Amino acid sequence: MLQRIQDPYSSCLIIWLQIIAEIFGTYFLIFAGCAAVAVNLRTGGTVTFPGICIVWGLAVMVMVYSVGHISGAHLNPAVSFAFATCGRFPWRQVPAYAAAQVMGATAASLTLRLLFGNAREHFFGTVPAGSDVQSLVIEFIISFNLMFVVSGVATDNRAIGELAGLAIGATVLLNVLFAGPISGASMNPARTLGPAIVAGRYAGIWVYFVGPFLGTVAGAWAYNLIRFTDKPLREITQTSSFLRSARRN
Amino acid sequence: MLQRIQDPYSSCLIIWLQIIAEIFGTYFLIFAGCAAVAVNLRTGGTVTFPGICIVWGLAVMVMVYSVGHISGAHLNPAVSFAFATCGRFPWRQVPAYAAAQVMGATAASLTLRLLFGNAREHFFGTVPAGSDVQSLVIEFIISFNLMFVVSGVATDNRAIGELAGLAIGATVLLNVLFAGPISGASMNPARTLGPAIVAGRYAGIWVYFVGPFLGTVAGAWAYNLIRFTDKPLREITQTSSFLRSARRN
Amino acid sequence: MLQRIQDPYSSCLIIWLQIIAEIFGTYFLIFAGCAAVAVNLRTGGTVTFPGICIVWGLAVMVMVYSVGHISGAHLNPAVSFAFATCGRFPWRQVPAYAAAQVMGATAASLTLRLLFGNAREHFFGTVPAGSDVQSLVIEFIISFNLMFVVSGVATDNRAIGELAGLAIGATVLLNVLFAGPISGASMNPARTLGPAIVAGRYAGIWVYFVGPFLGTVAGAWAYNLIRFTDKPLREITQTSSFLRSARRN
Amino acid sequence: MLQRIQDPYSSCLIIWLQIIAEIFGTYFLIFAGCAAVAVNLRTGGTVTFPGICIVWGLAVMVMVYSVGHISGAHLNPAVSFAFATCGRFPWRQVPAYAAAQVMGATAASLTLRLLFGNAREHFFGTVPAGSDVQSLVIEFIISFNLMFVVSGVATDNRAIGELAGLAIGATVLLNVLFAGPISGASMNPARTLGPAIVAGRYAGIWVYFVGPFLGTVAGAWAYNLIRFTDKPLREITQTSSFLRSARRN
Repeated sequence: MLQRIQDPYSSCLIIWLQIIAEIFGTYFLIFAGCAAVAVNLRTGGTVTFPGICIVWGLAVMVMVYSVGHISGAHLNPAVSFAFATCGRFPWRQVPAYAAAQVMGATAASLTLRLLFGNAREHFFGTVPAGSDVQSLVIEFIISFNLMFVVSGVATDNRAIGELAGLAIGATVLLNVLFAGPISGASMNPARTLGPAIVAGRYAGIWVYFVGPFLGTVAGAWAYNLIRFTDKPLREITQTSSFLRSARRN
Repeated sequence: MLQRIQDPYSSCLIIWLQIIAEIFGTYFLIFAGCAAVAVNLRTGGTVTFPGICIVWGLAVMVMVYSVGHISGAHLNPAVSFAFATCGRFPWRQVPAYAAAQVMGATAASLTLRLLFGNAREHFFGTVPAGSDVQSLVIEFIISFNLMFVVSGVATDNRAIGELAGLAIGATVLLNVLFAGPISGASMNPARTLGPAIVAGRYAGIWVYFVGPFLGTVAGAWAYNLIRFTDKPLREITQTSSFLRSARRN
Repeated sequence: MLQRIQDPYSSCLIIWLQIIAEIFGTYFLIFAGCAAVAVNLRTGGTVTFPGICIVWGLAVMVMVYSVGHISGAHLNPAVSFAFATCGRFPWRQVPAYAAAQVMGATAASLTLRLLFGNAREHFFGTVPAGSDVQSLVIEFIISFNLMFVVSGVATDNRAIGELAGLAIGATVLLNVLFAGPISGASMNPARTLGPAIVAGRYAGIWVYFVGPFLGTVAGAWAYNLIRFTDKPLREITQTSSFLRSARRN
Repeated sequence: MLQRIQDPYSSCLIIWLQIIAEIFGTYFLIFAGCAAVAVNLRTGGTVTFPGICIVWGLAVMVMVYSVGHISGAHLNPAVSFAFATCGRFPWRQVPAYAAAQVMGATAASLTLRLLFGNAREHFFGTVPAGSDVQSLVIEFIISFNLMFVVSGVATDNRAIGELAGLAIGATVLLNVLFAGPISGASMNPARTLGPAIVAGRYAGIWVYFVGPFLGTVAGAWAYNLIRFTDKPLREITQTSSFLRSARRN
């Protein structure tokens, strides 16, 4: 995938810049989303639950537009892993990306702990509200949905690539709105692990590894199933699809 | 409409991929929207009514951007039917699309029933809140509005096609916000039929067939009335219209 | 402005189509916005005040994308008038547009009266909450703001024309959010006149003529003041402006 | 930076137009945002806290699209200063921009005082809710975040420049949602200074100078760190980044 690079120094630097971009991106995402949860708990519901969801969705959107052109803005080990399973991201970069994402999430959680204390009732991690299995199914479905949308808008060159950030942010927003009260709507092992490490609370954490990893891989492959090859499909669907980009006409 | 296809095998495969895309798209739309209703009922209003509306609107937007370039992202038998009445979708594909949409909606409703149970007071289908006629009129108007917007943004090549998903999602969001408390704001026979089949509750279901089918056909033809032929209109309105795409100048 | 038209039949037809587009556009805008107000009053606040604001903002956005390429999507006599004062809309079309807009708004108000009755406490028109002068100042400022934004995003070819609908809808949304509880945030004589005619209530209606007409004209000319001539400004500001469209580079 | 200008008269006029654009832009931003706060206080919470956040975010977005192509839409002395530190804005224009921004903010605050009175409990400036240090850290982080996003979307020509307004507005919206209840989420010395001057209340005002200035400079340089040189990065990341603009392909 990176065969075009001749200069090994430059290539190595690029990878470091991508890792720093993932750290910054995940830091902001987790800081903003978890701060919304923490501030809402401390102020008796000022932010409101829909407000928390808006923070998560917009934070993802904003980070896709800010660092997407540098690192791809995965911000999520399950997304990096799922991209790797279908050859869209080099396997040997997955550990570095995952480490960067967990590091960003943990640093954000630590900042919030220093700012707002560590009261047990103000925990901003994710814990199943009902049974573990219910949360596991919900996490699987929303991670599937997220990766299906990511594949559709960001890897298919028939889609409108510029609006990828909007579509991905909107997916996170809506997933958190309906799944938040059940499973916490993590979709992201780093989002769960960072607050868990800082607070030392690991109840039900396996749910947020199994669900997102299985869900994103399944979502990526479900989209691959309907992707077909690009060329013939594009030519044919242009006549029956009602959504045509003005750009291509 | 599909005369350009030479290879019958490829053509048949394409149609199957489109049908699978409609199943996935409708599944996610109905799962997300109905899960928001169900979770809100079970948690005493955490999601809030505007939150439910945001889920419906964003789910439509996201699915238009994810599968719009594959299947057109109708996600609604009334939309497929209305497109067919004005020659924008082949009549012989309407039954397959409608079956796919109802299948997706029913599967989503079944998943929700398995996850959250089947309590009578947690029904996530649509039922008229007042008289059937009031809901019928509301369903007619909002389906008309939806199809008018779909025709305007997605079939008129003077419009800004890339933002079709945004405009269609916003239409659903605003229609649900004002019509939700009256008729449930279905606009979509599949959205009503799926939960009805799973819960076995069919009260007033005719409203959600008559209203959306009549409304979408009327909306498509109302837009056709003001569409005129493309070429002369474009040349003339460019001078007096204040909305001009930077792209065309 | 319309000198390019050779065929008088075609020209006349175009103007009729534009007028029908304005009727449809204003009908949907006023129906959606006022229905949100009416349903919220009847259901004890289900829609919520921010929900009503979202309906107004998105309805404007959606109509700009649906009929903007046909009629310009003024939907507001004050906007048509203000465009005419700076030569961007033919004076002789202003009466027809204004009549179409008032007709659409009145028809929408009548539909709502038939659907929801005419109870005095469910009035969905605009009435000053405090003094008339306070509401007049607020209406002037928000109409100024609206027309300033419309001029900036939709008439300046350095701006990003595709996002005009988004920016104009967002302006309406935010104006209604802060001005709604004071003046009702009309910005539009047709929006106030339609419900007033249907309910026969004209208290303080002069505020919603004087404020919007003065505000939009002042806003259009304020933008003209800073518009300068296009060519030199574009060349110069490209070096210091941080907002550059990728398209032009 | 402005060497291309030959005509000194034209150059001087341009700078004046830019300053007027900054005055108008900051006036609308501060008027809308502070009016939302003031109206919410006077009406017992009608606007709601998320509603106030939406006003701030959309007002920034709308002004970026309205005057961004004229003045760059800084609307914030800390942003102008941070751009100057990395050579993206001429140092000698910083004082004029800062004066324009403070003038716009003060005029907006004065208008609001005239409209709504000067009751002590209806203050719409920013004051730390907890300790000064807590608010300082929060202001530093959100200003860092804001400037990081501004640098990513508006100065990097690999990013999608058209959506800069959307991304920047969304950043403000989400920052206000989680930081508003703690520090007031100013991110902008002019936003704090205007209401403070009009009400004569300067408690903790140093927080809103130190935090935003340090935060924006740090954010701009953090992005510069990962920006690398444009050309090689673009070529290399195109293969591994999943976010590609359809435009470039």
